[in-house]
Amino acid sequence: MSIRIGIYGYGNLGRGVECAVKQSADMELAAVFTRRDPSTVKTLTGVQAVKADEISQWKDKLDVVIICGGSATDLPVQTPMLAEMFNVIDSFDTHARIPEHYAKVDEAAKKGGKVGIISVGWDPGMFSVMRLYGSAVLSNGSDYTFWGKGVSQGHSDAIRRVEGVKDAKQYTVPVDSAVEAVRSGSNPEFTTRQKHTRECFVVAEEGADLARIESEIVNMPNYFSDYDTTVHFISEEELKRDHSGLPHGGFVIRTGTTGLNNENKHVIEYSLKLDSNPEFTASVLTAYARAAVRMNSEGASGCKTVFDVPPAYISAESGEYLRAHLL
Amino acid sequence: MSIRIGIYGYGNLGRGVECAVKQSADMELAAVFTRRDPSTVKTLTGVQAVKADEISQWKDKLDVVIICGGSATDLPVQTPMLAEMFNVIDSFDTHARIPEHYAKVDEAAKKGGKVGIISVGWDPGMFSVMRLYGSAVLSNGSDYTFWGKGVSQGHSDAIRRVEGVKDAKQYTVPVDSAVEAVRSGSNPEFTTRQKHTRECFVVAEEGADLARIESEIVNMPNYFSDYDTTVHFISEEELKRDHSGLPHGGFVIRTGTTGLNNENKHVIEYSLKLDSNPEFTASVLTAYARAAVRMNSEGASGCKTVFDVPPAYISAESGEYLRAHLL
Repeated sequence: MSIRIGIYGYGNLGRGVECAVKQSADMELAAVFTRRDPSTVKTLTGVQAVKADEISQWKDKLDVVIICGGSATDLPVQTPMLAEMFNVIDSFDTHARIPEHYAKVDEAAKKGGKVGIISVGWDPGMFSVMRLYGSAVLSNGSDYTFWGKGVSQGHSDAIRRVEGVKDAKQYTVPVDSAVEAVRSGSNPEFTTRQKHTRECFVVAEEGADLARIESEIVNMPNYFSDYDTTVHFISEEELKRDHSGLPHGGFVIRTGTTGLNNENKHVIEYSLKLDSNPEFTASVLTAYARAAVRMNSEGASGCKTVFDVPPAYISAESGEYLRAHLL
Repeated sequence: MSIRIGIYGYGNLGRGVECAVKQSADMELAAVFTRRDPSTVKTLTGVQAVKADEISQWKDKLDVVIICGGSATDLPVQTPMLAEMFNVIDSFDTHARIPEHYAKVDEAAKKGGKVGIISVGWDPGMFSVMRLYGSAVLSNGSDYTFWGKGVSQGHSDAIRRVEGVKDAKQYTVPVDSAVEAVRSGSNPEFTTRQKHTRECFVVAEEGADLARIESEIVNMPNYFSDYDTTVHFISEEELKRDHSGLPHGGFVIRTGTTGLNNENKHVIEYSLKLDSNPEFTASVLTAYARAAVRMNSEGASGCKTVFDVPPAYISAESGEYLRAHLL
């Protein structure tokens, strides 16, 4: 029997989940839930759009809901609310607030007898799993996470709020020499500035003061002032032609030593090169939707993270198949 | 309370486990079990050596036994035998015989109410987990495993059996252009010869026919005839000076596409660079020993693999700590 999926929130991430479900033979997409007027929403695959606040009427028609809202204001409300009624998955990515979100979702999911898997995606998500495996296996070592080259939506938005800026894209770029130093196993310590640079492509309003815009960007606290930032002014056509995608990626590197006197060095490296950040995140969410359904069918309830999910549970294949073919 | 570890079999791998346990604050090594006369065995850390056939007297003194025998003849007998009495971990690596080994260990471990985790290490082991995560997350894709550059003990042994060979070391080397083709996402198909080359460093007996030795090596079925193999004759001193380590490593690469029309490409890459193959394998075994004890204390029994173990279970840290610091 197919796993019946609901998508709650239909932006870039929701559309990515729609595509990922289409690739999954063991799943079917039941409906997309939206805060917009459903009659104005045309889905990619033709699946029906339903008003978000009618989702409680779907209690017996969905095995799991993949929540595709934002971490700032949507997920802190939506995930606990929906976890009482459904098995849920979200991509909550405000690292500092994960313990608080976990506690709320855990309470709701236990109350409803459901499983909620939070902070699924690539960071948090696959990168977190790699940090965990690396630190457990090479306990005497250090880990390093580099992001990019890729588009940071939060930083692009911050630039767009500068007066005189019409549009912008910001790329986070890992510093090659820093990555190489880590790979060498030399256990370097870095300042924020030494690990990543920030590259901005900005379309200015006609007649705007470019020098002032550049200065406001590179000196912006939290977002740019701790980094070496480059600003390129380009035309609207160039932005559209060369910077319309949402690529991203990065590296998790663990280095450590073994042996009676730590005489042997080891390097574990995991890297992602993604053409589409939201579509890859959506693919991870969709795989973990399987795990939520399976864990709940075995009697589990409460909040889980990628750390709690046995790898086999995210696969559509049987244990026998996996042991024979992938082990 | 510390996890009490027994090591069964005291060669390179057993010594690696001894070092890994020493690095683990939550573990203590109780004893090393050996088929040799224990009075002749001097352990690295001074822990006692005990006759292997006395292990049944240790039933209440060990939480888990890490079995460090060979896959050809030791583990098929030892792991089922010990799994009836103890939680056990092994590194069984004969891929084709894993289903059979699993069935035997499962029966024994269930009978004894214990957990046996088999085929732990890096391949099978961490590489298997990476193949699983990759295939589940990018379901429309292909995966590729490359080994090396590293010493293959089986191939080195095969060369040593050639008449006129005094000693030898064989390196498995991934073909750079093949790795690059995979990374590009072009989904290449390879013959065995196109993925890896084999490089042999051979010490010949005095007066031996070098041309015959070389020919016997490069034409040896199963081991070398399907590969481009290079043979270097060197002196005993050179072998000792330049080739005494057991480095290894490799890559697992998954490439795949997402999007309504598979328009976006993604590359996931996991790589290992290991100074010491046995010590890294030992570190993985030791981390999974934690998981065996924890799963068993929660009521689980039977045979498990790395696919069945939640990542958090191999860490010494609590769920709260992991969520706050690694997620």
